[in-house]
Amino acid sequence: MAMTASRKPVGVFDSGIGGLTVVKALMRELPGESIVYFGDTARVPYGTKSRSTIVKFSMENVEFLLRFGVKCIVIACNTSSSWALPTLRRYFKVPIIGVIRPGARAAVQQTLTKRVGVVGTEATVRSRAYEMEIKRLDRSITVVSQSCPLFVPLVESGWLNGAISAQIAATYLQPLIRQRIDTLILGCTHYPLLSPVIQQAVGPEVKLVDSATQTAAEVKGLLAWSEWLSTSRAHPRHRFFVTDEPDHFTDVGRRFLGQAVRSVERVNHR
Amino acid sequence: MAMTASRKPVGVFDSGIGGLTVVKALMRELPGESIVYFGDTARVPYGTKSRSTIVKFSMENVEFLLRFGVKCIVIACNTSSSWALPTLRRYFKVPIIGVIRPGARAAVQQTLTKRVGVVGTEATVRSRAYEMEIKRLDRSITVVSQSCPLFVPLVESGWLNGAISAQIAATYLQPLIRQRIDTLILGCTHYPLLSPVIQQAVGPEVKLVDSATQTAAEVKGLLAWSEWLSTSRAHPRHRFFVTDEPDHFTDVGRRFLGQAVRSVERVNHR
Repeated sequence: MAMTASRKPVGVFDSGIGGLTVVKALMRELPGESIVYFGDTARVPYGTKSRSTIVKFSMENVEFLLRFGVKCIVIACNTSSSWALPTLRRYFKVPIIGVIRPGARAAVQQTLTKRVGVVGTEATVRSRAYEMEIKRLDRSITVVSQSCPLFVPLVESGWLNGAISAQIAATYLQPLIRQRIDTLILGCTHYPLLSPVIQQAVGPEVKLVDSATQTAAEVKGLLAWSEWLSTSRAHPRHRFFVTDEPDHFTDVGRRFLGQAVRSVERVNHR
Repeated sequence: MAMTASRKPVGVFDSGIGGLTVVKALMRELPGESIVYFGDTARVPYGTKSRSTIVKFSMENVEFLLRFGVKCIVIACNTSSSWALPTLRRYFKVPIIGVIRPGARAAVQQTLTKRVGVVGTEATVRSRAYEMEIKRLDRSITVVSQSCPLFVPLVESGWLNGAISAQIAATYLQPLIRQRIDTLILGCTHYPLLSPVIQQAVGPEVKLVDSATQTAAEVKGLLAWSEWLSTSRAHPRHRFFVTDEPDHFTDVGRRFLGQAVRSVERVNHR
């Protein structure tokens, strides 16, 4: 079992393009692993949709990745991790790792004042997933959450700086500043691209936490513990599948992955 | 045939909620007609997606509405009208009316300086559908287009006024003002809700055109000409179907319809 699994790829899915930030971290932490990425670009975003739709789409995404015999699945999408992870774990035997627990753990380690902020999509914030996970780790921590529905379109538009982005960030983050947080979880894969304006809005004392690095470390731990780490000397193979045409994914993806996105194929979900 | 058709409902589809502005206009123009509305809220938005995905989703939407024996179909969504209408007309016999031609016609009638602006989603602007339709009606008109990807999330967030919305509108509309347009087509069902900030950005001399009223008039013309107008004395029945949970649709829909949205059902597209 261990020998076979080590050769299998790691599966990653996301509602769209943002999960490439997690792929970037995985490539850095686990340079020998092959990755199969699935981005549901035809139905993106998930963050404005309801629990049942998020769960349904996530189930379909896992089923797609299982066709590639993946040894584990990483849910790069915060919204999907927030709402679908428990259901997915009940339905599927493959180990599934979400981004909520790693992000929550990083924040718990970072905070000194025990006041943590969370920003995310409407669905992620509504789920209270980060809050519950943080409280589970340390009940004495106060968590303040804020949904930021304009952040994703800002990033997708490439408006990463400038007065408008700064003002929107200030508007969203004002309530968290008033709550004197010292740590802020960027609870959406798009948000790290807005780090400069977010950091400016909350001030230099507040530490920003994004889940990607921590999640990659957790995947590494899982694979090492299970003796599923790749032992192959061949170059790993990375494949990307999307449900809409690949052009936009390839263009904008570079910004998230930090390098050109190669081998992108379109698939039909039905 | 005419007798039978008159009793059938009018079908309307949209990528989500915005098409309710067209339903509002239809209810006003055709108070005796029953309406079946389909909003693809699980896969919204269409405006950031590719042609092939927009066409595929639109085909499925028409197939859904045909189950209700609709006498005609109105595509309330500008993005879908821009990209899918020719294909839909090839595939289906039912008369299908989009919002592009009515909007273009209204703008051509309004403009005095023959300089027309168009704002819409990325997909609508990329399609150049308004431009081609206006040129077909009057080749001497100059058309300047601008995609406004943040307008839909602004409306969905309820940020209809205030400094941020005003600044975003000013940023998008600056190039159109420089081109000295005297008429501006609001080429997306969400945009009429931003009319005050848009009007402020372009100045009081520029006339804003939205397609809803003009489209409803065209539907009325079609039904009258075909002798398909409802002759029933019974109250018309309006039914709304959505692919995501109905709660958000019902809540936000009131803003678009101008009255409570009743009889909303969830359907599964597959």
